[in-house]
Amino acid sequence: MSTDTAPLTDLRVPQEVVDLVFRDARTVNTFAEGEVTDEQVRAVWDVVRWGPTAMNSLPLRLLLVRSPEGRERLVAHMNEGNKAKTQRAPLSVVVAADLDFHEQLHRLAPHVPGARDNFAGVADVRARWSRDNAFLQAGYLIVGLRAAGLHVGPMTGFDAPGLDADLLAGSGWRSLMVLNVGTMPADADGTPASHPRQGRLDFEDVARTI
Amino acid sequence: MSTDTAPLTDLRVPQEVVDLVFRDARTVNTFAEGEVTDEQVRAVWDVVRWGPTAMNSLPLRLLLVRSPEGRERLVAHMNEGNKAKTQRAPLSVVVAADLDFHEQLHRLAPHVPGARDNFAGVADVRARWSRDNAFLQAGYLIVGLRAAGLHVGPMTGFDAPGLDADLLAGSGWRSLMVLNVGTMPADADGTPASHPRQGRLDFEDVARTI
Repeated sequence: MSTDTAPLTDLRVPQEVVDLVFRDARTVNTFAEGEVTDEQVRAVWDVVRWGPTAMNSLPLRLLLVRSPEGRERLVAHMNEGNKAKTQRAPLSVVVAADLDFHEQLHRLAPHVPGARDNFAGVADVRARWSRDNAFLQAGYLIVGLRAAGLHVGPMTGFDAPGLDADLLAGSGWRSLMVLNVGTMPADADGTPASHPRQGRLDFEDVARTI
Repeated sequence: MSTDTAPLTDLRVPQEVVDLVFRDARTVNTFAEGEVTDEQVRAVWDVVRWGPTAMNSLPLRLLLVRSPEGRERLVAHMNEGNKAKTQRAPLSVVVAADLDFHEQLHRLAPHVPGARDNFAGVADVRARWSRDNAFLQAGYLIVGLRAAGLHVGPMTGFDAPGLDADLLAGSGWRSLMVLNVGTMPADADGTPASHPRQGRLDFEDVARTI
């Protein structure tokens, strides 16, 4: 396990980009004042949508929580330890998977004739497919938000069925994660912007070769 | 839906990095000759391991398939349409989730006392947790491989239970995806390096605001 941040030379991107997106990026709980605009999120989406998904199915969906009423409803579903930081985040985004992603496959995967119809009758396959691929896209999304200079605090500690029945009612969207998003974190009134960094597994811990 | 690639100005990273990792990157099926080294994959891991996961649980595991014997065994589990390209890829990587990720939590999440023990008795929770978070990390991994100048061909078309019972026998690893990895794709002997690019959903297709 390692906590080092020695510079690498094998990547084709500038070291400062690697630092911005991965090495120096932290899960942030306290943000500076100031809005995160639709234009910022749209710019991120316009990049990360090019990331690969199975059959180009793109099941990721985003519910941007902006209104005071929406925020109250969201906070009510968060675990106790996630309520305060979600209450004061500049923007909270419910990251969801769309069970009805197959309705777009005639546009997204015209190279797979009949894909939409083949998925129509297998809701259990769609549930797993959409969850898998939306989590994959969530990885692209977090990278993209950080590449835009935004800071994120991803959370899975919330009542997902309760949130879905409330905020996502009437849709095929199923919540996976809530992201608090903002700009430059501040160590305001004694609350640290993020926790101390934990270690990570080394290559030898995670990789085998046959 | 859009297929445009108009430049963006809102990101904090150079346009050529955005192009390398997202806009110009393609799912690649034919690669140039030449090895992908452990050092290249290690350099990518050393960056992408810093991406956030729930409770810093890092369940992603990688089986690097290098030997001719290993490749034959892998190819046997691939769907028919994925066999030839996996046969000739410079490196194939089985991307897996470790059901036993909780065994590392005393090191990775010392801020959550008892986490390892709490997960020990709930294999169904660990199965979902490890799959969700490993797919999230797979998103970081694909970004990182591309940032290293490598090209990837991700595939989910294979017999996962069969692969697990063979290549991952005796471990808690469960396969999620197979990545073919290589360098500069070539349009060799009439086989296109990748399929024509498909469109993507627009921001309005995937985002709602409350």
